Amino acid sequence: MSLRHQLSINHYSVRQMTLEQLVDGCQKNSISHLGLWRDRVHEIGTERTKELVANAGLKISSLCRGGFFPYDNEKQRQQRLEDNRRAIDEAVLVGASLVVLVCGGIGNAGLSASRRMVEEGIAELVPYATERAVRLGIEPLHPMFAADRSVIVTLAQANDLAALFPREVVGVVIDAYHVWWDPDLEKQVKRAAGRILGFHISDWILPIPDILNGRGLMGDGYIELAAMAAMVRKAGFHGAIEVEIFNQEFWQLPGDRALKLIKKRFEETFSGNQK
Amino acid sequence: MSLRHQLSINHYSVRQMTLEQLVDGCQKNSISHLGLWRDRVHEIGTERTKELVANAGLKISSLCRGGFFPYDNEKQRQQRLEDNRRAIDEAVLVGASLVVLVCGGIGNAGLSASRRMVEEGIAELVPYATERAVRLGIEPLHPMFAADRSVIVTLAQANDLAALFPREVVGVVIDAYHVWWDPDLEKQVKRAAGRILGFHISDWILPIPDILNGRGLMGDGYIELAAMAAMVRKAGFHGAIEVEIFNQEFWQLPGDRALKLIKKRFEETFSGNQK
Repeated sequence: MSLRHQLSINHYSVRQMTLEQLVDGCQKNSISHLGLWRDRVHEIGTERTKELVANAGLKISSLCRGGFFPYDNEKQRQQRLEDNRRAIDEAVLVGASLVVLVCGGIGNAGLSASRRMVEEGIAELVPYATERAVRLGIEPLHPMFAADRSVIVTLAQANDLAALFPREVVGVVIDAYHVWWDPDLEKQVKRAAGRILGFHISDWILPIPDILNGRGLMGDGYIELAAMAAMVRKAGFHGAIEVEIFNQEFWQLPGDRALKLIKKRFEETFSGNQK
Repeated sequence: MSLRHQLSINHYSVRQMTLEQLVDGCQKNSISHLGLWRDRVHEIGTERTKELVANAGLKISSLCRGGFFPYDNEKQRQQRLEDNRRAIDEAVLVGASLVVLVCGGIGNAGLSASRRMVEEGIAELVPYATERAVRLGIEPLHPMFAADRSVIVTLAQANDLAALFPREVVGVVIDAYHVWWDPDLEKQVKRAAGRILGFHISDWILPIPDILNGRGLMGDGYIELAAMAAMVRKAGFHGAIEVEIFNQEFWQLPGDRALKLIKKRFEETFSGNQK
């Protein structure tokens, strides 16, 4: 299998493209996998999305995203669970087998309580996801997002959380940008074996252009992506590698040029690492 | 002991003040401890610094900073060790018993090799520091600084590193801003017992105004400082708590107003926590 077939493009990497344009671009550039975002799916509907993707012979590596479990009151708790159930429904409708969970930041109750709410929230969803054969991938985010986006900030913590649930349903999504700095990474990737549902890449560039949208193109920064991919492969993950770059400047490029650049860098990143 | 006596002002919190102004401000506001920075000490010299601080009856909680161990060649390695020896010498000259180590970012050799360079660098310094009765405090920095400032990013890692050296000489400095997100924090603070040489505070505010200089005033953000201080105290640290805020906006305030504000917030933060 050539590495070309292991590349997945997350829609937000090229969010200047509509989903139609992206599907077309994937075909033209022999890219086999896609990571979808719900807001972009909503623009054309789940039925049209499913048809587009199927007609193009593409596979969906993930649907972003569910999560945001911490709540400040019962109404909010119900709303968030409902939104997560909708995410699972949408996964079924478009033909995705994985919903990525960005677990949510700190609620009024504080950090520890918010972490418990994440655990409870996932527990509530597991039966619903199980019945629909959709997997839930807990994605630890970089600690700089602990306050506003994810109280789950290390792979150790995501592994601990996933271990509370059946491995057929709950696993982890490893995004290089979020975990590369972790001295415990190799150990935790090993520990995640059998639970790794996704592997995302981009690069950590300096100076950081923006906290949220300052991710770099592979090869422009400090993350040792080939080594990390080897770890993840060794732990038994053989799915497509999803490129997820949030970068204002990159979003200014013409979509097709951005796609070609991602593909080129992807191949360069793993050129010494083919198997 | 009232909490008033446990406040230390890190000079960079009010870097709009000269060292003379800061010493004067501490006296006027009954602040007993100071955290010094070498660049500001250099402006007036070590002798004058020692005299000023002594005449004012102040104590020095730390001297910032040594570290930056990763190197790209032998010349750089020697330069960095030499600079660390100078930091130790300056600590002796001003009467500080602690040099804070900000260990340095990633060198050309990559992340793992850079981490080994930190360990080797500290090993080289230990005899020099021992002879001069100066302690070295390893400060883990937030993972968002892993590439450019510190490959040491968790308290677990700082504890592991400190454990390689005599506890009389090498310990850790815990800065709330850098470690608050860590699910392993309580365990690692306990593990650091007997090695905690400093405790720094500020707050994590949203939106983050700036990666490097976007720390908030205590009470404006998400860090549960009273709880963290209780952990640190329980682990046997009874030194002054150093307020270290890097914030462009805060630096625009008149120095004396900034000092009063820090003192007020410090007292509010720990008002339920006196002992």
